[in-house]
Amino acid sequence: MQRSNDATGEADLIAKVAEAKTASLQLAMAPAVTKNRALKRVAESITSEREALIAANEKDMGAAMALIEQGKMSRALASRLKLDDSKIDEISRMVESVAALDDPVGRVTYSIKMDEHMDLFKLTVPFGVIAAIFEARPDALPQIASLCVKSGNAVILKGGSEALQTNRVMHSILAEALVAEGIPKGSTQLIEGREAVSMLLKMDGMVDLIIPRGSNEFVKFIQDNTRIPVIGHSSGICHIFVDRRADPENAVEICYDARVQYPAACNSMKVLLIDSSVAPSLLPSIAARLIEGGVRLRCCPRAKNILESRGIAVERASATDWVTEYLEPTLPVKLVDGIDEAIAHINCYGSRHTDAIITEDRDAAKKFLRMVDSSSVIHNASTRFSDGYRYGLGAEVGISTNKVHARGPVGLEGLVTTKFVLFGAGQTVIDYVGKNAKPFLHQRSGVEINGRY
Amino acid sequence: MQRSNDATGEADLIAKVAEAKTASLQLAMAPAVTKNRALKRVAESITSEREALIAANEKDMGAAMALIEQGKMSRALASRLKLDDSKIDEISRMVESVAALDDPVGRVTYSIKMDEHMDLFKLTVPFGVIAAIFEARPDALPQIASLCVKSGNAVILKGGSEALQTNRVMHSILAEALVAEGIPKGSTQLIEGREAVSMLLKMDGMVDLIIPRGSNEFVKFIQDNTRIPVIGHSSGICHIFVDRRADPENAVEICYDARVQYPAACNSMKVLLIDSSVAPSLLPSIAARLIEGGVRLRCCPRAKNILESRGIAVERASATDWVTEYLEPTLPVKLVDGIDEAIAHINCYGSRHTDAIITEDRDAAKKFLRMVDSSSVIHNASTRFSDGYRYGLGAEVGISTNKVHARGPVGLEGLVTTKFVLFGAGQTVIDYVGKNAKPFLHQRSGVEINGRY
Repeated sequence: MQRSNDATGEADLIAKVAEAKTASLQLAMAPAVTKNRALKRVAESITSEREALIAANEKDMGAAMALIEQGKMSRALASRLKLDDSKIDEISRMVESVAALDDPVGRVTYSIKMDEHMDLFKLTVPFGVIAAIFEARPDALPQIASLCVKSGNAVILKGGSEALQTNRVMHSILAEALVAEGIPKGSTQLIEGREAVSMLLKMDGMVDLIIPRGSNEFVKFIQDNTRIPVIGHSSGICHIFVDRRADPENAVEICYDARVQYPAACNSMKVLLIDSSVAPSLLPSIAARLIEGGVRLRCCPRAKNILESRGIAVERASATDWVTEYLEPTLPVKLVDGIDEAIAHINCYGSRHTDAIITEDRDAAKKFLRMVDSSSVIHNASTRFSDGYRYGLGAEVGISTNKVHARGPVGLEGLVTTKFVLFGAGQTVIDYVGKNAKPFLHQRSGVEINGRY
Repeated sequence: MQRSNDATGEADLIAKVAEAKTASLQLAMAPAVTKNRALKRVAESITSEREALIAANEKDMGAAMALIEQGKMSRALASRLKLDDSKIDEISRMVESVAALDDPVGRVTYSIKMDEHMDLFKLTVPFGVIAAIFEARPDALPQIASLCVKSGNAVILKGGSEALQTNRVMHSILAEALVAEGIPKGSTQLIEGREAVSMLLKMDGMVDLIIPRGSNEFVKFIQDNTRIPVIGHSSGICHIFVDRRADPENAVEICYDARVQYPAACNSMKVLLIDSSVAPSLLPSIAARLIEGGVRLRCCPRAKNILESRGIAVERASATDWVTEYLEPTLPVKLVDGIDEAIAHINCYGSRHTDAIITEDRDAAKKFLRMVDSSSVIHNASTRFSDGYRYGLGAEVGISTNKVHARGPVGLEGLVTTKFVLFGAGQTVIDYVGKNAKPFLHQRSGVEINGRY
């Protein structure tokens, strides 16, 4: 674990954030070609410096092994921490793929000729300084840093302490490559120690956005302890509702995929709702397939009766099951009397992340998709599709369950905000108000920025 | 003032918010034609019920007059409270103009064919329940309620207590007209009393967005005391920077307009920065025109020296002047040594609202527009143009100085969020992962929603 003398102290943190802020104003103006060239150089440096990376990672792995022996770390965590040749190649390709994405900065999202020689533009611009706090995986730092640089943002990086040595080397390779290609010095900053995170959360004048990754408890802690906007979700209580007109095979296979394929995923099914009118005919086959996949079912009394009458033994659900995010393959099951009860249940107990309906009834689907208040709603497909890569967004910054700014899987567009830019020729408001006010033209077509920004 | 027995109690508030939440799910699905017809009926009812409105307003005016006599209310506030025939006609036209705006709900902002028979759409959807807390003006309630209904949101309305009687009658006219045209009952709710606001701020599971209007202190109080997203700004410390290559006439007229035309506006100039190299030639004429307009200048030592050497007496600026939002015609003036100092000053002391540069130098303008981190940046025009109506947004919900969600003047688009809707045909994720993974098509063209939502 991290020793206290590694931690970033308050004065050091303030200096780093201030340097990032200054760099961010320059970085915001960096042309796409500079940012892409710099990212390609990062990709190259990561492969050419592979020995230094692996040596650093071996130190982290050594510390991890000692912790495993003491029972203080899981083997699963240690295996995610491991960096080898093929992982390094994968990281390098990932950074290159970020270089290949469209530049999210400088897109005109609104333009209008307010009057002659008075043109208004709404443009996408970087946030400024983003703080990213992430798990102990060697690919997390280069991924987040690449996305931030691509979107013109300076970034404060705080990784899991188990990856301390790897992150230090990774960051120095990355920072050097970026500066060598003209990215302002100080655009990426590495900080260490939990105390630094606590201080960072209070820097709402300096840090413009926080991206936390990690456990739900951790994300919730961040959301609850800062005034800085946060992109993320703290829980994924996702439902599948099997409607009375569900196709039986779809119901069985989609429920199986959504619960079994990756049980710990935020977008896996956490609660199954089934229409009581088809439960006697459909639930036994859905349940059999899930149990075959190793799922423990926890059923409402009516579902339990149906299954036990077919000789399928299941546990009884408790009241807290409807609000519990089981990350292991456990599944609470509830009978509902029709779609309205299903929608009400989801809107009441869900986490507004991703919910699906299985039905051949187009009107029922429409009602569900419209009335379920979640970031993703799905008809006849697995909840597991709710993901930035699968949604074609290129790279996923996170999945947001907020309604403001970015909702659902967030790509690079989540790392930019907008700014109004008005070009005038000496106009004053007094001419446009009162009795003899000049009218505005408010003409939408043919307004071009022509290198004025 | 409001008597305590008028206040909305806790149980009553919860019932109202719950009713609004239920209504919001139906209202979200209301077609544009229904919403527009309902708004037109509201416009008609406001004119046909003018006697009831004026009678209610007379009660409020009577109470206001008594308060003025006791020195507890300003005449300015009372005059804004007044409702007469022409004001009623104006309100009615305003509601009709909201009906004429484009529907912000249901716009497809992203669509992709993920695979055969698997289409993804990102659609604009209402927030759900919006709480609006606004000043004592008879036009505020119908304006905010119209914008919320138009954007498919239920709304909790809390008006200034001085307009209590007027708001009650206005709300009952409005609610009745909406319901008569098929808008779900309970979509608009009127609440009263300050205690109700405090309770409302804690209802982050039920209320999706808060729009506060009123004094800066009030907005700041709201922002500081809720976890619900807030659209608004708590201060408008807007700057004009007169560059060394400013056109003298532009500098004089724009500064005059920005400070004098409406001093209390959030987008009026609050601080003047001038390049020291042109201050001796330009500042005296700018200052003379401002003083002629009744402005009290508070100058940095160098600016004071220049003006006093021309026989123009001014006050000395204090350190707090650079962070004070003078709503009366007072203007701190500071000499800066070039554009970099101006930009640094604005980014340090400004409120990220609206800032302008006066210059004939296109490169200087470009630098200023890019590096000043504000919601609106302006070249050679008055800061007072930063406004939803002038920007052609149709109707202004507010001006946001947040970087997330909506930034700058916010129109109807600020009252909607987005939702991903995925239409499948039984697909499971397992087929798209691993060694023999099916590739995604991720095809952008020709994807149509075709009445499926």
